[in-house]
Amino acid sequence: MNQPSYHEEDLGNTPDALVEEYGLSPVLVREITRSLEDESGGPRIHDLLIALHPADLAELISLLNSEQRAMLIAGIRSEFDAEVLTHLDPEIRDEILSQLGTEKSAEVISELDTDDAVEVISDLSAEEQKEIIDAIEDQETREEVKEALSYPEHSAGRLMQTDMVSIEQGWNVGQTIDYLRTNSEHLPTDFYAVFVVDSAHRPIASVMLSRIMQNNRDVSIDAIMNTDLKPFAVEVDQEEVAYVFRKYALVEAPVIDAQGVLVGVITVDDVVHVIQEESEEDLLRLGGISQQDFHAGVFDTVKRRLPWLMINIITAFFASRIIGAFEGSIEKLVTLAVLMPIVASIGGNAGTQVLTVAVRAITMRELKSTNALALVRKEVLTGFTNGLCIAAITSSAIGLWYHDVKLAAVFGAALIINLIVAALAGSLIPLFFNRMKQDPAITSGIFLTMLTDTTGFFAFLGLATIFLV
Amino acid sequence: MNQPSYHEEDLGNTPDALVEEYGLSPVLVREITRSLEDESGGPRIHDLLIALHPADLAELISLLNSEQRAMLIAGIRSEFDAEVLTHLDPEIRDEILSQLGTEKSAEVISELDTDDAVEVISDLSAEEQKEIIDAIEDQETREEVKEALSYPEHSAGRLMQTDMVSIEQGWNVGQTIDYLRTNSEHLPTDFYAVFVVDSAHRPIASVMLSRIMQNNRDVSIDAIMNTDLKPFAVEVDQEEVAYVFRKYALVEAPVIDAQGVLVGVITVDDVVHVIQEESEEDLLRLGGISQQDFHAGVFDTVKRRLPWLMINIITAFFASRIIGAFEGSIEKLVTLAVLMPIVASIGGNAGTQVLTVAVRAITMRELKSTNALALVRKEVLTGFTNGLCIAAITSSAIGLWYHDVKLAAVFGAALIINLIVAALAGSLIPLFFNRMKQDPAITSGIFLTMLTDTTGFFAFLGLATIFLV
Repeated sequence: MNQPSYHEEDLGNTPDALVEEYGLSPVLVREITRSLEDESGGPRIHDLLIALHPADLAELISLLNSEQRAMLIAGIRSEFDAEVLTHLDPEIRDEILSQLGTEKSAEVISELDTDDAVEVISDLSAEEQKEIIDAIEDQETREEVKEALSYPEHSAGRLMQTDMVSIEQGWNVGQTIDYLRTNSEHLPTDFYAVFVVDSAHRPIASVMLSRIMQNNRDVSIDAIMNTDLKPFAVEVDQEEVAYVFRKYALVEAPVIDAQGVLVGVITVDDVVHVIQEESEEDLLRLGGISQQDFHAGVFDTVKRRLPWLMINIITAFFASRIIGAFEGSIEKLVTLAVLMPIVASIGGNAGTQVLTVAVRAITMRELKSTNALALVRKEVLTGFTNGLCIAAITSSAIGLWYHDVKLAAVFGAALIINLIVAALAGSLIPLFFNRMKQDPAITSGIFLTMLTDTTGFFAFLGLATIFLV
Repeated sequence: MNQPSYHEEDLGNTPDALVEEYGLSPVLVREITRSLEDESGGPRIHDLLIALHPADLAELISLLNSEQRAMLIAGIRSEFDAEVLTHLDPEIRDEILSQLGTEKSAEVISELDTDDAVEVISDLSAEEQKEIIDAIEDQETREEVKEALSYPEHSAGRLMQTDMVSIEQGWNVGQTIDYLRTNSEHLPTDFYAVFVVDSAHRPIASVMLSRIMQNNRDVSIDAIMNTDLKPFAVEVDQEEVAYVFRKYALVEAPVIDAQGVLVGVITVDDVVHVIQEESEEDLLRLGGISQQDFHAGVFDTVKRRLPWLMINIITAFFASRIIGAFEGSIEKLVTLAVLMPIVASIGGNAGTQVLTVAVRAITMRELKSTNALALVRKEVLTGFTNGLCIAAITSSAIGLWYHDVKLAAVFGAALIINLIVAALAGSLIPLFFNRMKQDPAITSGIFLTMLTDTTGFFAFLGLATIFLV
């Protein structure tokens, strides 16, 4: 087998192998896992691994456990493709960098574009970062990486690549093409646009390559360029960058320093990762996860999740004190204890719906001060309507089951009250945290459930104490 | 003011206006809203609106209420930019299309690329779609839109644009550039790559424009093309498309029919929207929202959210029956009613953490059959450890508060049991639904909280009944 391939045909055509058309087939994963445990499989597996796309190799590495990973890396160490690192999650990347050692890591990292190199080492400790950077042999690369690391984390300066294509004002299509042909070794491999700069190297326009290629050599770039640039300052947050790229459907944007000078470009493929990350952040934070821990070990996972659970337990104790205040009523009518969690639970669920929509709209910048009041009004009306519908059904059921109309009425009223509070809390809490410049995704959930639990218990037990016991 | 601009300088430089560097300033939004209510503001506002980027105009439209929207559309009807439609949410888009009427809608839609045209009308009823399509004047456009609509929703066929650039095998750089120059009116405005096709028009490779431009006219395309194509069949789901684009950092990919013939291309800007949509879907579904309803009215919002709440109320009643079974114990020791919601609540929160991580990992295709067991094992260990830590603290508190060691022990034991069940449920339920080809985000939450509530009540009240009362 001269041309190793990772297609399922080579590895037995089971139906399972056909499930994934792109990327790794489960059969290949199993084959490699087996070979790792079997000494004789060495050469065959080596060929298979080297033939994989870096993204597929990264995926395979993520699927293995630490020991398997170490064996695999040892096997391909000398031909290790730097691109693989850019496709890995931080936890696994750091593990591999320490296995490769400082010298080899530095060698591998210097093969990457500046933005990727910086991303790869950014999760390491300051000390480890310094060691690796000092071990980079090429001085220019070393300086570029240092420069990029000097920008704040998650900033445009970190996202940009410094290799870029800029031309002077007043050129024509022919001059531009000639420039690109004669300077090809100093240019990035792939790019989509060329930036036009003034005499101070400030970007004033961009031209898509497709426009350049569709015009004759004597056409002036001025005639085909786009002056509606969206330049980013180096310190702008990546969330802002992603928002602007998405909104205006950009593929490439210039990054400028404080003097307005072009210092780098951000391309859409970098932004795709950011968009993914930012959405993931909201999703995880609403679920009570401060940081993705899928690849973290038990100890790290506990360390990250426990604080959130501790806060939750405090709020749960707080809500339980409300119940404690009504112990006398529960003693007289134990049915109250049976029904009260329902009122609290439905409030929590309805509030989470509102919260999710509001947090999402804030992230997408659809929810602003101008339409905040309209949202709150709509949510309260929705909560009230949902409350009426649910109360109608559940109160009938309770009335029939317990033969107690007053109990049914108290339950229904408490439920409606809690759904209105849930609507208010679900919309106002994230708006408040956003106004306070806090991430609404991470903090709002705690306060929401505390409020809906407390209100649920208080409204139900309070009304019951007045009208029933 | 000949050159109307939307920058804050024109509208008074308040600090508020400086908050948003890109897009609409709050000052502009307020200015326009005021002008809409004031007859005399007409001409000024018209100039402002026409000067806006379509994405900004779309954002502005979304921030207005229905009446304001109708006034604004009436004012710019004759110059309405079709691009605006592609930036709007379905609800608002449909509202504007009905205001524009069939004739005008058809005229506007035929200005768009096929993929955008289809996206814009895809949410309309079949009847409305037919009306608008029949009203499109240009026959070729009409046929193209019909063709694209024949592909399944959310498929590669819907995402692709049919305008594309393909060249024959064996050409050189010079021939390619000449072809692009002479055919510029039949080509898409912006593209990043050219596809090389064989005699049957099947794609065999792609060449980035930047590669073409960096080489001399006599260089053969064969020498610089990339044969590692990831072609999509027309019926492939957009989720798959987004996954492959993200994984391999693609900017453009060919779409082929059943015979392998090139029928369209998908570009990264289309995929950015899909990535956004898919992440949003997970986020909303985990929050109990079946479909984004930020722009929906109260009635539609109730209609969409109520079913989920009804399911939740059923599971809440189910859990409350467990409590009902232990009424006798609660009557004897009412403290049980005070503490039981804490056990249930912490189980729900811990389970949601696990569920969020698992659902995310399934969506990102990081969690597969090969590493599922490792995840479950890790989560159970994490749950047990978290349970031990929380139980140690809370049981001590309860022991001190109630002067009852046995109560404290029962509470701690029930809490640990529930955290283990939460870990199992949070990881196994989404894996199960994924295996059953169901979306784990939408269904798993219901079953999770049912299990953690039930277990919380059962373990705590059951143990209490055995050891305390």
